[in-house]
Amino acid sequence: MKILVTNDDGIFADGIKNLVKSLKTVGDVFVVAPNRQRSASGHSITMHDPLRAEKVNFFDMNIPAWSVNGTPSDCVKLGIEALIKEKPDIVISGINRGSNLGTDVLYSGTVSAAIEGSMMGFPSIAVSLQYDQDMDYTHAGNFSKKICNMVYTNKLPMDTLLNINVPCTEDIKGFKITTLGVRKYQNSFIERIDPFGESYYWMGGEVCDEDNGEETDIHSVKNNYISITPIHFDITKHEMIHKLQEWKFDI
Amino acid sequence: MKILVTNDDGIFADGIKNLVKSLKTVGDVFVVAPNRQRSASGHSITMHDPLRAEKVNFFDMNIPAWSVNGTPSDCVKLGIEALIKEKPDIVISGINRGSNLGTDVLYSGTVSAAIEGSMMGFPSIAVSLQYDQDMDYTHAGNFSKKICNMVYTNKLPMDTLLNINVPCTEDIKGFKITTLGVRKYQNSFIERIDPFGESYYWMGGEVCDEDNGEETDIHSVKNNYISITPIHFDITKHEMIHKLQEWKFDI
Repeated sequence: MKILVTNDDGIFADGIKNLVKSLKTVGDVFVVAPNRQRSASGHSITMHDPLRAEKVNFFDMNIPAWSVNGTPSDCVKLGIEALIKEKPDIVISGINRGSNLGTDVLYSGTVSAAIEGSMMGFPSIAVSLQYDQDMDYTHAGNFSKKICNMVYTNKLPMDTLLNINVPCTEDIKGFKITTLGVRKYQNSFIERIDPFGESYYWMGGEVCDEDNGEETDIHSVKNNYISITPIHFDITKHEMIHKLQEWKFDI
Repeated sequence: MKILVTNDDGIFADGIKNLVKSLKTVGDVFVVAPNRQRSASGHSITMHDPLRAEKVNFFDMNIPAWSVNGTPSDCVKLGIEALIKEKPDIVISGINRGSNLGTDVLYSGTVSAAIEGSMMGFPSIAVSLQYDQDMDYTHAGNFSKKICNMVYTNKLPMDTLLNINVPCTEDIKGFKITTLGVRKYQNSFIERIDPFGESYYWMGGEVCDEDNGEETDIHSVKNNYISITPIHFDITKHEMIHKLQEWKFDI
């Protein structure tokens, strides 16, 4: 099994290190990851600047690894189309330092790298570990290995990828197949004044999750279950097509 | 009607200028837009740097306008939560210089600004004009005005926004309610050697659209119809939940 690994915390983050350590026991691993933190990069790609890929020593693990001055999506594209000779059987992104749950997945570089893999026709997975002051990636690493095996055996439909969130606890109760919940924030900006009297803003604010039922990833992780959410990238709202056709367009 | 306008080509782009010129005849317009080109920024947000918002003179139009050192999504968030006192009735993003069709919408800063507006609970629209050497935004501007009126009258469901693409032709045949097509690229990277013998890569490649039926936005614009695609941001692949539950998880 050939596995392309990327992330959005940067190639020297603990999460990707632990992921690769676990995966290299079950397959040939290639790493193509950003040279720096790229959190909240969403599905951005680099079109107006050239990309550089530097071959690096990845934690003395003796696997092919490239550090790229681009986004997670760039890494997947560049990895598959230019750097790696063989096509991967699986693209996996993570392990992210912090959850990627509910509507937040749209901002996630981790998830968008997996979306990119899926768009290119490869079975893809995103893995994130709930944030904690003391992050232990061991369990999430092991789980990722099992999920890779499962995906390799069962196959995924062409347009579907898996978004996995692991709770940060020693007491994991199991896993659940979930839907994306809804995540909202309150008081998103903190205004401050700089030493020159000019204001600037920090994005901040508190999560206020509402009405996230048992079927959602948010509920699942909150209750110490790993969430496995199948996601896709056709964002057409099909049910609305008919309604729009009934609008009286004065055009 | 209070209208928040943003874009991803930057606050001084022709597209946003023409959009505002048209919209200010039907409502109170506020502009909050990036201070520079932010194409292909996807749904990225700025969490690790502070944001600055500078009040600017927007083409002598005498409307409130801020230039922000962030992404299109940042602009919508910051605009609504910090800069504008009143809540908008509509959030509109554009007019983008170039189409945002099919699966490409996932990379689009223009579309993700509208997704952000919708996630925050406001009826939202993204408008793009097909690329041409000589871009004339007049028709797309007029159409945007009509669409704003339509959305204001008919309302949109909370989780649905409209992605509109206008063909660049004088011979527009009308409009169609469409689904997102599939857009793929061939030979996405061009490798070059710098003066120091090191290689670098440009993302490039040609569009190869396949099997985009009459119902798709791609087909519509290709045939000189304006496309109106309802989109949403729940990317859960609901049909897959049941199948995944049948997997024999060895976990």
